[in-house]
Amino acid sequence: MDPENLPVINNYLDANEPVSSEARLSRMHFHDNQRKVDYVLAYHYRKRGVHPGHGSPGPSLAIVSNGETGKEPRAGGHGDIELGPLDALEEERKEQREEFEHNLMEAGLELEKDVESKSQGSIFVRIHAPWQVLAREAEFLKIKVPTKKMYEIKSEGSITKKFNELLQKLSSPLKPRVPEHSNNKMKNLSYPFSREKMYLYNIQDKDTFFDNATRSRIVHEILKRTACSRANNTMGINSLIANNIYEAAYPLHDGEYDSPGDDTNDRKLLYQEWARYGVFYKFQPIDLIRKYFGEKIGLYFAWLGLYTSFLIPSSVIGVIVFLYGCATIEEDIPSKEMCDQQNAFTMCPLCDKSCDYWNLSSACGTAKASHLFDNPATVFFSIFMALWATMFLENWKRLQMRLGYFWDLTGIEEEEERAQEHSRPEYETKVREKMLKASGKSVVQKLGTNMAEDEDEDDEDKLTWKDRFPGYLMNFASILFMIALTFSIVFGVIVYRITTAAALSLNKATRSNVRVTVTATAVIINLVVILILDEIYGAVATWLTKIEVPKTEQTFEERLILKAFLLKFVNAYSPIFYVAFFKGRFVGRPGSYVYVFDGYRMEECAPGGCLMELCIQLSIIMLGKQLIQNNIFEIGVPKLKKLFRKLKDETEPGETDSAHSKHPEQWDLDYSLEPYTGLTPEYMEMIIQFGFVTLFVASFPLAPVFALLNNVIEVRLDAKKFVTELRRPDAVRTKDIGIWFDILSGIGKFSVISNAFVIAITSDFIPRLVYQYAYSHNGTLHGFVNHTLSFFNVSQLKEGTQPENSQFDQEVQFCRFKDYREPPWAPNPYEFSKQYWSILSARLAFVIIFQNLVMFLSVLVDWMIPDIPTDISDQIKKEKGLLVDFFLKEEHEKLKLTDEPAPRSLGGGRRSRSQAASSAPSGRSRPGSITSSASQHTNV
Amino acid sequence: MDPENLPVINNYLDANEPVSSEARLSRMHFHDNQRKVDYVLAYHYRKRGVHPGHGSPGPSLAIVSNGETGKEPRAGGHGDIELGPLDALEEERKEQREEFEHNLMEAGLELEKDVESKSQGSIFVRIHAPWQVLAREAEFLKIKVPTKKMYEIKSEGSITKKFNELLQKLSSPLKPRVPEHSNNKMKNLSYPFSREKMYLYNIQDKDTFFDNATRSRIVHEILKRTACSRANNTMGINSLIANNIYEAAYPLHDGEYDSPGDDTNDRKLLYQEWARYGVFYKFQPIDLIRKYFGEKIGLYFAWLGLYTSFLIPSSVIGVIVFLYGCATIEEDIPSKEMCDQQNAFTMCPLCDKSCDYWNLSSACGTAKASHLFDNPATVFFSIFMALWATMFLENWKRLQMRLGYFWDLTGIEEEEERAQEHSRPEYETKVREKMLKASGKSVVQKLGTNMAEDEDEDDEDKLTWKDRFPGYLMNFASILFMIALTFSIVFGVIVYRITTAAALSLNKATRSNVRVTVTATAVIINLVVILILDEIYGAVATWLTKIEVPKTEQTFEERLILKAFLLKFVNAYSPIFYVAFFKGRFVGRPGSYVYVFDGYRMEECAPGGCLMELCIQLSIIMLGKQLIQNNIFEIGVPKLKKLFRKLKDETEPGETDSAHSKHPEQWDLDYSLEPYTGLTPEYMEMIIQFGFVTLFVASFPLAPVFALLNNVIEVRLDAKKFVTELRRPDAVRTKDIGIWFDILSGIGKFSVISNAFVIAITSDFIPRLVYQYAYSHNGTLHGFVNHTLSFFNVSQLKEGTQPENSQFDQEVQFCRFKDYREPPWAPNPYEFSKQYWSILSARLAFVIIFQNLVMFLSVLVDWMIPDIPTDISDQIKKEKGLLVDFFLKEEHEKLKLTDEPAPRSLGGGRRSRSQAASSAPSGRSRPGSITSSASQHTNV
Repeated sequence: MDPENLPVINNYLDANEPVSSEARLSRMHFHDNQRKVDYVLAYHYRKRGVHPGHGSPGPSLAIVSNGETGKEPRAGGHGDIELGPLDALEEERKEQREEFEHNLMEAGLELEKDVESKSQGSIFVRIHAPWQVLAREAEFLKIKVPTKKMYEIKSEGSITKKFNELLQKLSSPLKPRVPEHSNNKMKNLSYPFSREKMYLYNIQDKDTFFDNATRSRIVHEILKRTACSRANNTMGINSLIANNIYEAAYPLHDGEYDSPGDDTNDRKLLYQEWARYGVFYKFQPIDLIRKYFGEKIGLYFAWLGLYTSFLIPSSVIGVIVFLYGCATIEEDIPSKEMCDQQNAFTMCPLCDKSCDYWNLSSACGTAKASHLFDNPATVFFSIFMALWATMFLENWKRLQMRLGYFWDLTGIEEEEERAQEHSRPEYETKVREKMLKASGKSVVQKLGTNMAEDEDEDDEDKLTWKDRFPGYLMNFASILFMIALTFSIVFGVIVYRITTAAALSLNKATRSNVRVTVTATAVIINLVVILILDEIYGAVATWLTKIEVPKTEQTFEERLILKAFLLKFVNAYSPIFYVAFFKGRFVGRPGSYVYVFDGYRMEECAPGGCLMELCIQLSIIMLGKQLIQNNIFEIGVPKLKKLFRKLKDETEPGETDSAHSKHPEQWDLDYSLEPYTGLTPEYMEMIIQFGFVTLFVASFPLAPVFALLNNVIEVRLDAKKFVTELRRPDAVRTKDIGIWFDILSGIGKFSVISNAFVIAITSDFIPRLVYQYAYSHNGTLHGFVNHTLSFFNVSQLKEGTQPENSQFDQEVQFCRFKDYREPPWAPNPYEFSKQYWSILSARLAFVIIFQNLVMFLSVLVDWMIPDIPTDISDQIKKEKGLLVDFFLKEEHEKLKLTDEPAPRSLGGGRRSRSQAASSAPSGRSRPGSITSSASQHTNV
Repeated sequence: MDPENLPVINNYLDANEPVSSEARLSRMHFHDNQRKVDYVLAYHYRKRGVHPGHGSPGPSLAIVSNGETGKEPRAGGHGDIELGPLDALEEERKEQREEFEHNLMEAGLELEKDVESKSQGSIFVRIHAPWQVLAREAEFLKIKVPTKKMYEIKSEGSITKKFNELLQKLSSPLKPRVPEHSNNKMKNLSYPFSREKMYLYNIQDKDTFFDNATRSRIVHEILKRTACSRANNTMGINSLIANNIYEAAYPLHDGEYDSPGDDTNDRKLLYQEWARYGVFYKFQPIDLIRKYFGEKIGLYFAWLGLYTSFLIPSSVIGVIVFLYGCATIEEDIPSKEMCDQQNAFTMCPLCDKSCDYWNLSSACGTAKASHLFDNPATVFFSIFMALWATMFLENWKRLQMRLGYFWDLTGIEEEEERAQEHSRPEYETKVREKMLKASGKSVVQKLGTNMAEDEDEDDEDKLTWKDRFPGYLMNFASILFMIALTFSIVFGVIVYRITTAAALSLNKATRSNVRVTVTATAVIINLVVILILDEIYGAVATWLTKIEVPKTEQTFEERLILKAFLLKFVNAYSPIFYVAFFKGRFVGRPGSYVYVFDGYRMEECAPGGCLMELCIQLSIIMLGKQLIQNNIFEIGVPKLKKLFRKLKDETEPGETDSAHSKHPEQWDLDYSLEPYTGLTPEYMEMIIQFGFVTLFVASFPLAPVFALLNNVIEVRLDAKKFVTELRRPDAVRTKDIGIWFDILSGIGKFSVISNAFVIAITSDFIPRLVYQYAYSHNGTLHGFVNHTLSFFNVSQLKEGTQPENSQFDQEVQFCRFKDYREPPWAPNPYEFSKQYWSILSARLAFVIIFQNLVMFLSVLVDWMIPDIPTDISDQIKKEKGLLVDFFLKEEHEKLKLTDEPAPRSLGGGRRSRSQAASSAPSGRSRPGSITSSASQHTNV
């Protein structure tokens, strides 16, 4: 373990030394043109003693510096007195960097960096992982690599096969033109890399055996676990970046995506075949995406692709449902009756004093429009969509399994767990603080000395529930406050609508289009509020999760997602829930209206029913959110940021290296890109959209169409972002999409209830049905409108609420209002009538039947579709068998079997494989490894 | 692999040779007193040529014989002509046995059997597994054994610790007095057995290192996979037993449970501390049970124990709810009003003609009784029970994990999968038949020759959907038929009740107690039918599953369970569902009753409400089923069988060995026990009981008490059966209770809906609530009875249905009936009134709220209780770390590390363990095994 034996190679190149860029083969290698740059660490340096004349030091920088020096007074001999606090910090950082880089070299990595020649500037530490490091780490990380053995993937029965071939032919123009990584018919048997079993693998070139993503993953793994004792014993690059010791750490892109020549690289290929709007109709090259960006991002795009393709059938059916509404609009008896001028119903005034009696036929337009969305087909459609959601989730599970099989992800739970075990820097700091507080100096001593054996004292160095309590309380309080804030904003918009409507109806000129104006402005206010709060809540959720100090990155991510989802869900849907279930239900009745404030009546739904309004609300919020978020937040803001940075660079004096800007190295180029910050926002946007598509599909059957259109763009937009605008993310292995799946299935379940209520409560479906079968004289809907309207004796209007100067052309004795109440001449006038209760019973019965039926069907679908596709589970079993056979053969060739006879029975049975498996352990040479290989394949 | 090298030891002892039983140490060893008998194969032989004079050959035997000989004519030279078909069969079997036993010996097992000295008799082949076989197979099966390394199980915080200690002290008299296998504070680190790593384990005595259950498991594994080429290439002992070649195969019990001396064995210990009614109050010695019977049976008793202990709180609360009902019975206004003689309601006659008007106060008793079960506390109780079910399932998951950790079951998926791969003999036969049919002779050739390499031809030798279709169709049809049968029996009982009631009410003498007689007899008929059908359906389910020809034992078991559960569930619950939800709802109303047959009115509920009747039905069926099934089927029938066998033995001439009967060997004793047939009936009984406890708990809060009482007995009854009455079962490893868990959670979910409906529809809870808050004048229930009764004008009774010679003491103009209908003087008489609809709305709203609330709470409980107990997951992580450390240490001691330095960074950080883990792969010597060991611990 002594450092002398280490193959440390360290190049400190003078950046001013002229190196002709022509002479270099690629801009992704060390200056010796041989060693590939696998990772880059970037930091900003400022020479000692040179106080920057321009650009005042950032305040945060100064604070950190004071805090650090105050706590740990320097004891070095660098002339402490002359050093300003900034310099001391710089010096401290430099030493930490040096130690860290030394440790990296000790771990076997090779580093190259330019000399700090100027008074300040950016330095890029390039890291190369030589073969022995790669091999060692690949073995440790159990990275599965292809072995020499290929095997045929079993094809299905002849009919299915032919059908598949036909499908392949038909869809060939839709296929992206990328080289096939995994031949469709053959698959390499994969096995975790092991230096002892090199003969298993087909290693032609040690430089390219591991692809770039794997190489950078390996380096990242080393970076994460290398400690830096100077920096408070922190572990890994993440802590160092958090402490501003390094500025950035990223792997390199595979070259430029828009280079003019014929030279291809994976990035360029991805750009041409995937990340352009021009190829929107093509399938995604998922395997290539996974190869380039890693499994986590690959799974995201696979999920997005499946979701988008699942939207196609639901869009088609949604459009058909809508067209059915259009086609039957003329046959709809209730809207015909409403539009009938002769048989006009005199309606009670919509507001006190200033509003007049009005004729129901004036609401003819909205009645017709509402039929578009409120017809029996929507009931069918919402059942369909509930099952669609289940089908989608089931198919995703299957696709996930399939990808897991082809990407050799079966059996990686262990790695995931290891990833969990890296504590977050913030957690470490907190624990350290706690220990310092708790036992003062003795602990500090312990920290320094016997920390290596403190396994039994785990209890002390973790946060207990007590430590976390303030954080949890803060979280709980803040989330409650945020939700309350959202609700009060919704209420504020309601008040706005009520007061504005009242104010506008006073003015005769504006009275005619009061409703349109008020609705439109209110929805736009809602939309703007949603968009603003969405951003705020995202930040708040991050802040709250930081307060909680979760131990590992994974818990951090999960809690952040849960919080952000809760807040954004409430934010996006509360106005919609209000319109769907509460608007117009607390109006009261003529003569005893409910007043919000003095003189302002609660708002009613439009005469066409609340469903129409719900539909408007939904479509505007959904479309607006998508359009604005896509255009402004995802396209506009990054462009603005870029522009801003460019301007800043230009205004700053030319300390930047002009040579670099002419022939920029790949690390310079990548440094200028935005850092990758995780997939959460992308998933979140899609999940909220999934909510729009499923939760209220009963009221807006066109939602899937709009979602589909959005997603076709979204896929390419995200692709472009990943390929051209972001630094290359670290390749992260994962088997599934994690908590998002739970959220999706939660939304799916909730959508059943929500749709049941929309159909039962908001739409007119149930009243029509009841009328048709219980009250109608001839089984048709003739007379339905009359049936839904109650009578009111205008003489009973409260004093001061009668319409002033009524211009209604006839004498009004009774006005009508939409409710089921006893007529004025009944013994108990204006009480809810028997019809009201019978229709309510029918509505509730419908909810029960719908909910339980759909839930049952979902469970059935879930049960009928196996989670693991049959062919994949067969393949996995087969692969396991093949692996044992292959091993035995290879071992046979290498070593002689010199053990006692295997328990192979004489009878030459038909079960050759199971016998082979049973005789496996008799081969004495490391049975552990053989069986471990098998276990890799079965833990599905 | 040549047989000469095999250490075959074979003793053929002449049974007549006198061996003094005193000289032998134990009756569980070979005659050399050294080698332990691990397994016994029993068969019945009949000497060639000796035609048995007594006892005609069983018909099934003859059929098999003819079929076998017809297909494969013998070619041997044993004088074919003289041999009868029986003899030929005997000879064939003998040869098959010889081959099989030869193969077993070749696999390393050692056999001993007595000489076939008489003309016919039972022969026991005793099997002993020597150390090298045990070691080989233990390695292959990856049996986890304790290593030398012990470690302390982390104790919780100080308060929890003290509390636990107190609890331990208090419960110490309840603990069974068995030696602790696993010390509570320390646990041995376990690691799969490997012959290369013998130094890891603490092997003191090779004869006892593997306990008896493990030894027999290993032998059973060999027996299962040893082929017998003569018997149509069948694999394993199960096929041979199915083909009557052997009669039985069982491991030996650990001695006698009632031996008088002080010598203890596990069986005796189990009997004394577990399998007696005298120790009913004690905890179960789960670890000992698992050690003796294996994990599968251990899990069953652990589950049963948890279920029983969970019944305690629910029983207590159930009793409290019942007592609350008793206490408030005098304050219940509706029943007081009903009993009030002065304010009597004249009710309409209960049947046509022969029944008279009656006074509601005559139903005073039932009204009071029904209050016991129909009070607001039951609503609370059914919410409680729904959450209880969720809690129970969650806690079971945790206990399962905990047991899995202590029993070293983490990471045995692979073995389970291997177990699946053994095809069932029936499946094999079917496939062979198919292949024979399909391609005639060529396949037969293939069978004989190149079967070893037919991996790519899997498609041919498996059953496709087409082959299975008839089976599926038959299944579907039969199940439908069975369900229809059940329903028609329920309907038959209804008709019985209606007609009997009508017949009895004609007779004046019997009229007074018509209702009691009819209800009682009907319930008893129901009970008897349920008990009979239960047995029939069990057999039918087995038969149907056999028709289906599932491939593996596991699918067979799962499908059998599903089918049996479906049939038995429908059988047990359909009469109860009828009473709960349908009885009395289709009666019609006075003047327009619904008639089943000419003149027979649909039955009504008793005046106290249907809930009372539901309660009676439930209690009688539940209690009767439990009592009768426990007493007759589980105690009586086995005793009868024993008696019958004894009688038969006595009547048969004395060919049985008198020496054996005096000093019977353990295998003789065990042979006389019943064979073990699986846990399905035990689970099924408990699951059906779980249904009684949860599904209708709203109507019968005492169900948990009865279940508890039953289970306290049931545990000991089952225990006794396993210890004293059954042959020792093969120890089967399994991590969970499989499909039963899904069924349990399905019942749990269904119980929410069912209870919601019982409270809403069957009980009077909602009508009372509605009356109290909407109709009552003073907010009390005064007048409720009057409110629930509608008026009927007796003059409108149909001609011929009026009471003949009414003896009612006053003139009746209006009679009352229990329904919400308009009075005769309303404009639309006898239509459902507004009250009806409003109460219906309230009922349905209650269902929706109850269902969604309880489901939400269940999800919350599920989410809040982690599936893996925190301490266990910590332990598993810790164990993984320790294992790596331990390994490294042991390997260090054995081998010098001669690899390049590990990627250990210099900074002596606090993270000693993670660094140890990260440096693990640098130890070159078989890293595969180290990491595989780790994977064993993480696949939780």
